[in-house]
Amino acid sequence: MINENYKNLHDTYFFSLIAKKVNAFIAENPEREIIRLGIGDVTRPLAPLVVSAMQKAVQEMGNKSTFKGYGEEQGYEFLRSALKEYYKKSKKADLSMAEIFISDGAKSDLGNILDLFSADARVLIPDPVYPVYVDTNLMAGRNIVYINGNSENSFLPVPDDSIQADIIYLCSPNNPTGAVYSREQLGLWVDYALKNQSIILYDNAYEIFINDQSLPSSIYQIPGAAECAIEVSSFSKTAGFTGTRCGYTIVPEALVRQGLSLNSMWLRRQTTKFNGVSYIVQRGAEAVFTEEGFSQVMENIQYYRENARILSKTLDDLGIWHTGGLHAPYIWMKCPDRMGSWDFFDYLLSRFGIVTTPGAGFGAMGNEYMRLSSFGERSAVEKAEDLLKNGLKEVYQ
Amino acid sequence: MINENYKNLHDTYFFSLIAKKVNAFIAENPEREIIRLGIGDVTRPLAPLVVSAMQKAVQEMGNKSTFKGYGEEQGYEFLRSALKEYYKKSKKADLSMAEIFISDGAKSDLGNILDLFSADARVLIPDPVYPVYVDTNLMAGRNIVYINGNSENSFLPVPDDSIQADIIYLCSPNNPTGAVYSREQLGLWVDYALKNQSIILYDNAYEIFINDQSLPSSIYQIPGAAECAIEVSSFSKTAGFTGTRCGYTIVPEALVRQGLSLNSMWLRRQTTKFNGVSYIVQRGAEAVFTEEGFSQVMENIQYYRENARILSKTLDDLGIWHTGGLHAPYIWMKCPDRMGSWDFFDYLLSRFGIVTTPGAGFGAMGNEYMRLSSFGERSAVEKAEDLLKNGLKEVYQ
Repeated sequence: MINENYKNLHDTYFFSLIAKKVNAFIAENPEREIIRLGIGDVTRPLAPLVVSAMQKAVQEMGNKSTFKGYGEEQGYEFLRSALKEYYKKSKKADLSMAEIFISDGAKSDLGNILDLFSADARVLIPDPVYPVYVDTNLMAGRNIVYINGNSENSFLPVPDDSIQADIIYLCSPNNPTGAVYSREQLGLWVDYALKNQSIILYDNAYEIFINDQSLPSSIYQIPGAAECAIEVSSFSKTAGFTGTRCGYTIVPEALVRQGLSLNSMWLRRQTTKFNGVSYIVQRGAEAVFTEEGFSQVMENIQYYRENARILSKTLDDLGIWHTGGLHAPYIWMKCPDRMGSWDFFDYLLSRFGIVTTPGAGFGAMGNEYMRLSSFGERSAVEKAEDLLKNGLKEVYQ
Repeated sequence: MINENYKNLHDTYFFSLIAKKVNAFIAENPEREIIRLGIGDVTRPLAPLVVSAMQKAVQEMGNKSTFKGYGEEQGYEFLRSALKEYYKKSKKADLSMAEIFISDGAKSDLGNILDLFSADARVLIPDPVYPVYVDTNLMAGRNIVYINGNSENSFLPVPDDSIQADIIYLCSPNNPTGAVYSREQLGLWVDYALKNQSIILYDNAYEIFINDQSLPSSIYQIPGAAECAIEVSSFSKTAGFTGTRCGYTIVPEALVRQGLSLNSMWLRRQTTKFNGVSYIVQRGAEAVFTEEGFSQVMENIQYYRENARILSKTLDDLGIWHTGGLHAPYIWMKCPDRMGSWDFFDYLLSRFGIVTTPGAGFGAMGNEYMRLSSFGERSAVEKAEDLLKNGLKEVYQ
């Protein structure tokens, strides 16, 4: 009666091992400064207009005449129309209101969307990858095939016709690599999905960091994507909502498989197993798309971008191979020749007090790479720049 | 590749058919007053202390020094300890912090908890019942056996040893009937579950309405329940959070099946497919358990209770069989002899302008019953009292 697939999950030691090592270092070296470049969370607070929108909404909830009870599970029209407008204006993508579903975050919807697939659906996942895509499918007992990212393909694998898959995970801009697919490359994936009748689960959570209009900021900028792709996104990184909780999923009405409309299925799933996102939070998310609100969130994005630029330049000057950092908050750098990512993690921590995220945590293809994050403090990034430009060469020949 | 179980779902016409009929009536009879006794949503606003707690939290999110990013998926300690205290003080039930999981609502967790069960788990569901328990299992392709509530058992079915089940749904106080199990009756269910190694999914969402200490307000007041029951609850009805979104699920550490700890599985599931409840909302929920906050929410509960008392008394005086209304916001009344619940719905609407919820929407055992809700306006309830006490006798002999 119990789902025994849970026995097949690996221990979640990765992030707790990092924390353990860092805490041990701090305990043994209380006088050393810790420079945190491993953060996967935002550090800048919510935009003032988002705050005031939520204050107003909280106030409304305390008054009978403005109180809101249950909202539509799919999300309030005011937020869905703001998203429809955003997609039209900044992505030139036409969505209908019925295709937009407000969520409490990409992680929830990336997990729950799998309800719509059978247990025997074959899954294609890139390596390296954020472990959640893997675990959610292991929990359902699915077989997973991996497609490798490496320095040769700039960690942007393109379709391999020898692989058959029903569900394809793509994340661009990528966590952990920060790499971004071109329109041409995404076009190859869309063609592959259409040919094989696969469905692409497109994780677009970092789209706000794209700084070049020629790069796709939605899968729906690729012709044919409406017939083969579901796009999942979030306000977490865009607007600092990691603790506030709001995202959205786009399921096109044109997406039909085996005589079933994925859009109708998702609506049914959400109206049965979900009760919508907090009214207060939806008003906060709506404020993100006002002119002033968007300008305020972009200030924070610019802050992280500058952090990334400083780190990228430091690596450039040291001649160390890396990708990401340009249209993404993450930088993916090659470890020194004689060090795997855990060894390099230990070295950076003990030598410089710098905390990073070992690529090994994201798959075998990450074993010789390290993820740096730009979400932290400018002062930390500048200290890291100083320490690394003067000290890192010793381990790179 | 697609989950074809979705083809087995029935159309969700029930609540939209009600809405259609009501809107048609309003259009044809614009001068008639509508008296809403069908509401499944709260109407009283959030308590002042809840509002101020959330205002403070929103403010914190706008300041770097107090900003909160990702929280533990299981929920902040401040809220889990408030719940642990609440269970100890008002239910004499001892929970550990690790057993309490904050959710965005009972509906989400009642759906998602099914991830922990295999597709071939056998499900026992009472009839009448809130349709969501049924649909969430149909989506997973499970077989469902029903156990009947009726006037003979006061809509409180007790175990039938001829039925084998792995998952047992119980809801007390009940939606739609308002019936409440006694400790003895719940003891029978716990014994049955322990004997059969089943797991009870106990929906405790209406526990706040219980007004008699001898009636169980948690399954964990029954000895042995920790080895066979998961309790799901919500702030929706307790504190008016239907639009704010917060609930909690208790998975005892003693609950083990097939060598797997359900508590560990649920933690794994939530850390993989969920990212926690909004910090702002959790601070609002915490305020519910302050002395003043609880006193404020109980004012609203008292308001709904008085509505229920008025409606119950009206039916008593008319000699119409009904249950619920005493420790629940719902009243379940017998329809007139010659009318099924849809006919009675039409009659009450056209004759009195009263909107109700036909029992047929909750299962075959509801075909001759009607659900009345006490969540509406006192003025509406008083008008209904007047109209019914003078006019309803005509259809009851």
